[in-house]
Amino acid sequence: MNYSQMKVLITGGLGLIGSNLAHRLVELGARVTLLDGLLPGHGGNLWNIRAIKPALTLHLGDMRDQATLETCIPGQDLVFNLAGQGGHLDSMLDPLTDLELNVRAHLELLESCRRLNPAVRLVFSSTRQVHGIPRYLPLNESHPIQPIDINGIHKATGEYYHRLYHSAYGMPVTILRLTNTYGAGMRIVDARQSFLGYWVRLLLEGKPLPIFGDGRQVRDFNHVDDCVEALLRAGSNPLAIGKIYLLGGCEVVSLLDLASSMARLVPGGGYALVPFPVENKKIDIGSCCNDFGNIKSDLDWEPCITLANGLRRTVDYYAEHFAHYVSV
Amino acid sequence: MNYSQMKVLITGGLGLIGSNLAHRLVELGARVTLLDGLLPGHGGNLWNIRAIKPALTLHLGDMRDQATLETCIPGQDLVFNLAGQGGHLDSMLDPLTDLELNVRAHLELLESCRRLNPAVRLVFSSTRQVHGIPRYLPLNESHPIQPIDINGIHKATGEYYHRLYHSAYGMPVTILRLTNTYGAGMRIVDARQSFLGYWVRLLLEGKPLPIFGDGRQVRDFNHVDDCVEALLRAGSNPLAIGKIYLLGGCEVVSLLDLASSMARLVPGGGYALVPFPVENKKIDIGSCCNDFGNIKSDLDWEPCITLANGLRRTVDYYAEHFAHYVSV
Repeated sequence: MNYSQMKVLITGGLGLIGSNLAHRLVELGARVTLLDGLLPGHGGNLWNIRAIKPALTLHLGDMRDQATLETCIPGQDLVFNLAGQGGHLDSMLDPLTDLELNVRAHLELLESCRRLNPAVRLVFSSTRQVHGIPRYLPLNESHPIQPIDINGIHKATGEYYHRLYHSAYGMPVTILRLTNTYGAGMRIVDARQSFLGYWVRLLLEGKPLPIFGDGRQVRDFNHVDDCVEALLRAGSNPLAIGKIYLLGGCEVVSLLDLASSMARLVPGGGYALVPFPVENKKIDIGSCCNDFGNIKSDLDWEPCITLANGLRRTVDYYAEHFAHYVSV
Repeated sequence: MNYSQMKVLITGGLGLIGSNLAHRLVELGARVTLLDGLLPGHGGNLWNIRAIKPALTLHLGDMRDQATLETCIPGQDLVFNLAGQGGHLDSMLDPLTDLELNVRAHLELLESCRRLNPAVRLVFSSTRQVHGIPRYLPLNESHPIQPIDINGIHKATGEYYHRLYHSAYGMPVTILRLTNTYGAGMRIVDARQSFLGYWVRLLLEGKPLPIFGDGRQVRDFNHVDDCVEALLRAGSNPLAIGKIYLLGGCEVVSLLDLASSMARLVPGGGYALVPFPVENKKIDIGSCCNDFGNIKSDLDWEPCITLANGLRRTVDYYAEHFAHYVSV
């Protein structure tokens, strides 16, 4: 992976994944530009880049804005296209905003790349949610696309766009389908983007972690450092061009076990089973975990950070920086 | 099929399929409302309803407009949601307009139905194009969704929306994936929506029919009367709720054979092989034909009108009404 002097744009650069990726790219000597709209409630946080701000170019702007794209796209070698609206329930409550942020913005970005910089390398962050309720586990990339919420539909549409700009225009695109990603830099105000983020907040406030239903549904998780490593490999290996890869976690755990592990990280931590809210149940995918065999085979990537280690680091981070994440 | 006194809205009601469906519904005693934006170049034509205009309510308006939807949706028993942008090449040249017409408009419609009339029966016209380049023939509904142009992506997104409003909100939805539909009422000005329409024009102007490539690619076709029959059955049979059905033609023919048959319909008719335009080739799906076994089994539908008969009737119609279709 030679990122030295490479010109790299990260859309959604102030969020959990974008900001952690930016740290690694700055370390690797890349010339990094972040584009972020800092839309309230969407996870962008300037505190995430406090240590590297002088070492990069920050562009606060909207990806749907032509002038912004005309400033940011030309001259880049690589775009990590991570911007988006991540909330599933939010997408059902306000589908038109989700359409704007997860569909139109990406079509505008791709059209700008095609016009202004057609050779630019693109890595798009999608989600395993495009597969909907799994017909089999672990999920793999061949599983049908059958999203069951607006957000999943729109992320699938974003994927199809990226695949099309590869097939029709030859643009060098890679798609990663992420699983639940967590770590220092995520939004913890509420559960809109990540229930795990909200659990960190509740834990640090001495409140019990609410588990919907019986808690037996299983999930896998990626610490953000593992996710960033996958992005870096995808962006630098020609084998990844034109490919779609599912990421997956080291462990598959039930939400009950996850809550129990997290509760033990803080004195007095606890959890509680609560009835599944009807609006959440409508779009719940049940149990899910991913087969990451294809990215392991092509890019030699696998998750390395155990949940125990990753959660410990995450909770420690928010214990120190709590105020910077609950006031935004 | 009892459509008598049923309140039926047809979006895209002035196009080929909508207007022919309107004729049948008026005959069946339904209370028909047409919604059409008459957007230039998209196929809506007032001439299509000249004979039934007094028997229906015509609403000229945009499906993206809230006030329009609030006028049209309440009180309907059934919506045939046929509106859209049908041009594949157009969708590549102007993807953002295709997004507006094939995605946002349908999300607005579904949201309005959910809010104002959640029990309304919905039938959505999709396309076999959502399957992209077939991995096997004939296509069936289980074939992967892998669109290869913007239009196919957006129609797939529209399908996912309709499926979601069924799964999450229990709305009674049916999706038909149409194949090439032709007949009296289609746009013939150019090949933007249907090459077959344009061929009718060229034929009547004494010009040769251009065949891209070697003409060996095969397709199937539905005369609009067969398509309308499928819509009527889908809208009236409870078995169809929550289902997706592919339509298909009586015959599978090569474009060369099709051109040759059409050329014989008019004295002096001819055709010519021309090089495949590069922009068309990029999004060409090659050969395609559909297995309509599922709709035959559930709704006892099958195509009845042979190409020879359907093309004859179509060419006769345009010979008589030519001026009303080339001036719009």
